[in-house]
Amino acid sequence: MQPKRFDAIVIGGGVIGCSIAFHLSKLNKKVLLLERNQIGCEASSAAAGMLGVQAELEAGDPLFESARLSREMFPSIASELRELTHIDIELIHNGQLKLAEDEGQVEALKALAEWQRSIGEDAVWLDRDALLRLEPCLSEHIYGALYFPKEGHVYAPRLTQGFAKAAALLGTKIREYCHVQNLLISNEEVQGVHTNTGDYYSDAVIVATGAWSNQWLPEKLQQGLYPVKGEAFSLTTHYPLIKRTIFTKGCYIVPKRGGELYVGATMKAHTFEKSVSLEGLSTLMNKVQALLPVINTATMQHFWSGIRPMTQDGLPYLGEHPKAKRLFVATGHYRNGILLSPITGKLMAELVTGQTRSADLTAFRLDRHFETEEVLT
Amino acid sequence: MQPKRFDAIVIGGGVIGCSIAFHLSKLNKKVLLLERNQIGCEASSAAAGMLGVQAELEAGDPLFESARLSREMFPSIASELRELTHIDIELIHNGQLKLAEDEGQVEALKALAEWQRSIGEDAVWLDRDALLRLEPCLSEHIYGALYFPKEGHVYAPRLTQGFAKAAALLGTKIREYCHVQNLLISNEEVQGVHTNTGDYYSDAVIVATGAWSNQWLPEKLQQGLYPVKGEAFSLTTHYPLIKRTIFTKGCYIVPKRGGELYVGATMKAHTFEKSVSLEGLSTLMNKVQALLPVINTATMQHFWSGIRPMTQDGLPYLGEHPKAKRLFVATGHYRNGILLSPITGKLMAELVTGQTRSADLTAFRLDRHFETEEVLT
Amino acid sequence: MQPKRFDAIVIGGGVIGCSIAFHLSKLNKKVLLLERNQIGCEASSAAAGMLGVQAELEAGDPLFESARLSREMFPSIASELRELTHIDIELIHNGQLKLAEDEGQVEALKALAEWQRSIGEDAVWLDRDALLRLEPCLSEHIYGALYFPKEGHVYAPRLTQGFAKAAALLGTKIREYCHVQNLLISNEEVQGVHTNTGDYYSDAVIVATGAWSNQWLPEKLQQGLYPVKGEAFSLTTHYPLIKRTIFTKGCYIVPKRGGELYVGATMKAHTFEKSVSLEGLSTLMNKVQALLPVINTATMQHFWSGIRPMTQDGLPYLGEHPKAKRLFVATGHYRNGILLSPITGKLMAELVTGQTRSADLTAFRLDRHFETEEVLT
Amino acid sequence: MQPKRFDAIVIGGGVIGCSIAFHLSKLNKKVLLLERNQIGCEASSAAAGMLGVQAELEAGDPLFESARLSREMFPSIASELRELTHIDIELIHNGQLKLAEDEGQVEALKALAEWQRSIGEDAVWLDRDALLRLEPCLSEHIYGALYFPKEGHVYAPRLTQGFAKAAALLGTKIREYCHVQNLLISNEEVQGVHTNTGDYYSDAVIVATGAWSNQWLPEKLQQGLYPVKGEAFSLTTHYPLIKRTIFTKGCYIVPKRGGELYVGATMKAHTFEKSVSLEGLSTLMNKVQALLPVINTATMQHFWSGIRPMTQDGLPYLGEHPKAKRLFVATGHYRNGILLSPITGKLMAELVTGQTRSADLTAFRLDRHFETEEVLT
Repeated sequence: MQPKRFDAIVIGGGVIGCSIAFHLSKLNKKVLLLERNQIGCEASSAAAGMLGVQAELEAGDPLFESARLSREMFPSIASELRELTHIDIELIHNGQLKLAEDEGQVEALKALAEWQRSIGEDAVWLDRDALLRLEPCLSEHIYGALYFPKEGHVYAPRLTQGFAKAAALLGTKIREYCHVQNLLISNEEVQGVHTNTGDYYSDAVIVATGAWSNQWLPEKLQQGLYPVKGEAFSLTTHYPLIKRTIFTKGCYIVPKRGGELYVGATMKAHTFEKSVSLEGLSTLMNKVQALLPVINTATMQHFWSGIRPMTQDGLPYLGEHPKAKRLFVATGHYRNGILLSPITGKLMAELVTGQTRSADLTAFRLDRHFETEEVLT
Repeated sequence: MQPKRFDAIVIGGGVIGCSIAFHLSKLNKKVLLLERNQIGCEASSAAAGMLGVQAELEAGDPLFESARLSREMFPSIASELRELTHIDIELIHNGQLKLAEDEGQVEALKALAEWQRSIGEDAVWLDRDALLRLEPCLSEHIYGALYFPKEGHVYAPRLTQGFAKAAALLGTKIREYCHVQNLLISNEEVQGVHTNTGDYYSDAVIVATGAWSNQWLPEKLQQGLYPVKGEAFSLTTHYPLIKRTIFTKGCYIVPKRGGELYVGATMKAHTFEKSVSLEGLSTLMNKVQALLPVINTATMQHFWSGIRPMTQDGLPYLGEHPKAKRLFVATGHYRNGILLSPITGKLMAELVTGQTRSADLTAFRLDRHFETEEVLT
Repeated sequence: MQPKRFDAIVIGGGVIGCSIAFHLSKLNKKVLLLERNQIGCEASSAAAGMLGVQAELEAGDPLFESARLSREMFPSIASELRELTHIDIELIHNGQLKLAEDEGQVEALKALAEWQRSIGEDAVWLDRDALLRLEPCLSEHIYGALYFPKEGHVYAPRLTQGFAKAAALLGTKIREYCHVQNLLISNEEVQGVHTNTGDYYSDAVIVATGAWSNQWLPEKLQQGLYPVKGEAFSLTTHYPLIKRTIFTKGCYIVPKRGGELYVGATMKAHTFEKSVSLEGLSTLMNKVQALLPVINTATMQHFWSGIRPMTQDGLPYLGEHPKAKRLFVATGHYRNGILLSPITGKLMAELVTGQTRSADLTAFRLDRHFETEEVLT
Repeated sequence: MQPKRFDAIVIGGGVIGCSIAFHLSKLNKKVLLLERNQIGCEASSAAAGMLGVQAELEAGDPLFESARLSREMFPSIASELRELTHIDIELIHNGQLKLAEDEGQVEALKALAEWQRSIGEDAVWLDRDALLRLEPCLSEHIYGALYFPKEGHVYAPRLTQGFAKAAALLGTKIREYCHVQNLLISNEEVQGVHTNTGDYYSDAVIVATGAWSNQWLPEKLQQGLYPVKGEAFSLTTHYPLIKRTIFTKGCYIVPKRGGELYVGATMKAHTFEKSVSLEGLSTLMNKVQALLPVINTATMQHFWSGIRPMTQDGLPYLGEHPKAKRLFVATGHYRNGILLSPITGKLMAELVTGQTRSADLTAFRLDRHFETEEVLT
């Protein structure tokens, strides 16, 4: 007979849920990780794996500090997972280029560079000539780029698998194909979960079901969290066309460690529809052709999509549920789920076990949009 | 703006839900069909598509009459779907052989033949020699077989697609990737559904979510419905090895109209885990090698699995929910979902619209196991 | 021990080679069919399966008569293959529309219609309004279309499989993964073939290796035969967007019997490179968006390519080799390989066995471009 | 216009051909690499990637020294390819266990250990208890194992891609989908190649087409080289079941760095048929179940096969062709192609350019089986 009581139950086997399970397991907690389908089968596998702190976040973004902390955790996460599971997350620091496609962007990027340097980040402005010396295949119509030499990427599906397998080795019990139908809550305090494979009990439940987290949020928060579909595709080439990740409005190109180029990603809000549409793929292809004309001859490999969890103010929800004690939520990571997974796992494990937090969670608390009272749905 | 009120809402885009939507649309009802993932992505696509009335059902089975009716509907369903959608469901009547692997089975099959003939079905006993004349590649260790010359099969994924597309053409609105979170019920009467893409209203809701239907059943019925995983695989050959479907305990082999052989299926109760295990595949391979030795040289093509909805007494649940008016349920078709989909769609459409039923539903009513009262979960 | 002597050896397991093997087997010839890779793995599987006699061929084309004969053979071929192998080639006669995208094309199509009607074909001119009544999803920018109500299509991979399996049942020996390294020729007369799996002997060898046939042709003919890559993709939709095949310069859309739409095909001459390029796919997507705007929301399914054998004058090579007796060649079918496969198989079988030909082969003889002598390479 | 003259032409884009092209490019040679299909599409991608010097080779094997040299090259090859192309070949040194399944094997392995230690290799005998402490999931019926702590593996498809892309960056021209029809030889000296995409000229041609190399060998050598098909499959698990590669007669299990287990490989001689048969897969599954019983619950992922080039004496052919000057051959690596690819590339580049060889090639010369004269085919 399966034991039914756990120190913590994590709902959601994406990169965030798996990192939380891993970090809780490292604190010797007995964890149950429930996944509706298969580990990492949603947005976590669709991600290009960029660790784009500097390219993704604006000056002064409240996420910047946590993102920086998370990025710094990657080398030791990579070693730890390799040690435990043999899985190689393919971490690489090959630099990232944020393109300026008009004069306005040139100015904005120069300002961004200044701010980033002021807080100790590397950020180098490259005019067109300097850019083309670095990446000669880029279009000559690009005005220049901000260069972040230390940014890199990982292979997202393996990061998720690595967290899951390492957690399993440390004692986490994983159940795939398990549908949580409702939470067991008594006196506004969580007691466990009711699923299609039975009830499981714990005095700590963590919801990490990405864009599908609304079901567990109070009604008003549900307005704040919404899905944004991203479509992407990959290509192969005989020659490496670029050495660094290219990033611009509406398009990125990541040279992966298997030799493929990943091109992403569309942004279609308010849909859970995972299909890749002709229009989505075609828009992305036209965009990348303009940036990197030689890509025209590259060989199409795959296309796919993922549904990312976005919030109204662009910040994740990390904290206790305002209406149910010991019910925790970690969602809303949008395009930064891979990057933020190490710090999120760590912070949530600290929160659940009552330890001092490695970073301030105030900006991410769930009730930040609240003004009026509301009952738990 | 999407209209939110419908004549009927069908939850579940498998072959049963799609057939119900199709039959309701034919009665000019405005239908909403909600599917958690993609149309036909679960058991409906995993099915081998056998229309095995005589091979699957025992003498006196209360399902026999409905199954017969359903089988008779296939030629006109095939025409209708072809007419509306161009989809060809690949109906074929190539006969089926139910094998006897020991003396006991010889006697049982002869008795079955007698009963079937008494109710007007074709069923011919073949001893070993006659069997090998018909299917010379079968193993000589088989004792004989009961031959049903009129049985046949369809291509299951296309039947589901055909029902869905025909329903759509007749006005059904299909929403994929839509998660129903709870039913809207007031005064023990259904009002609609609450989903991750909004609320939809109707005074008739039909649950057809196969093995995942428990969530919508009263607690006691939940004991009666459980999942049974089936694993299967396909092969290709240069020569057709068999002409008719082979059926025996724990194994069937279906020669499909694309030239492949489908081999199925394991039966693993009480799991929603969809993975194909080494043990499952290997058991099936060993079994089929014993029946059809020459299959050893055939080329492996694919493997897959599906989760079938089984009930305690082996009969489906077709009827109104005992605790909520106008909430209907159609599930529990186990290995006969493809076969029973036409009659189920028809009967449920009749039930929902208050028409005279084409067959008696008493044996399939939901509260047949009830003895004591219970509140709606 | 494998017998090594055959009545005929067919090199090439595409739709042409398989049809020839089938037709020879029907004449009780003992045939060996050699395929470098797998049956039907090249252009034959990449084809959309259109039987487009009227849409593809110009007025007065020497192929027209044979194409017509071939189209007429399909119903009986379909029955014959179904009877022998259970394989359903999914023949449908749902009509075809050849679009006019400018005034010039309007006139050309009207003239084509007149010619076709003069030889007994159905061809109806539809102006914009009439066209949109028939296919309301088409773009309003199209000027009109010529409508061929009797044209249809088959499922190309199954046609090839059907020919191969039927041939095998009638005695043809199929060897996949067999590389023919050179022909055995003595006194300018073919004796057999030398392959990586041994030598095989026959006094009739038929080359049907599509775009790869040059190796077996005299040097001068090699100039006349060249490869043309075609890239294509498929989509799925909830509703059938079109009922008939749409055909225009550089693009066709075929509604297949599984419910998918096939969109093709690029034309890239002089390459054997089978990869699908970003440029190829993107060009095709842009083209189809202009013709059928609603396709934008359709779901991308697959993409693929095939290498078609083209000749200088657009006519196939069907006949005896000018430099080696009893060495026959059947190639150069370009985009009409599926359509022409029945008649080609029949004619080649007649040629090889010395029977009266069902059609005149003069226009397709190999030495039609010859002026000077040349030795066999 | 494509330049048609090269310093060297390599025929065959598998791991051997790509390594030779890479090593020649490093010597500033202008190389043309011709591949019939796609880079790495045959045995090179089917390989499990084991670097099994100690597990694969017997005491005194003439290959041992070269294999050792090759294994030692991997760390620097990994860095070099990463530097040039970003591709990570996933090199790991996680140890290998060669199992004893009966008393006879115990003695043989102990003797092997002694010999290996005598030449400076690590090889530790583990009795059953010690073995189960190291790998507790192994069956208790195993008698013990020889442990090679330094052995490891790479990801084979990436090694091939890495060599190819690095070569391309260093100037190698790669042509996929190019069929070499015959060699251009004059006065018993190679001049170039005749292909379906034209003629290419060089005074050095290297044949590295694995099991398909016979076409280019003198007739007598062709008896010495033959294909051996290997079938394999992969599995995924929640927990790592093993940490080290398991190796025994007829079966190996490799824990890959993506978390999968690779199980291989059957050995079917004298066939080029690449299909995976039911019998092959089933035999392998039964074998691995006996070794690692818990694998029964693992999830089946993929199956595949490859055709390996074997020679009569088990040693590769590395050297100049006995009948054509400057025609070089590198084939016959059987199950050691991945392991031997670095040293083979280096040695062949040295041979072609007339440099001092890093190892003695006498044992691998092509004419080692020759006794009588023979003309070039």
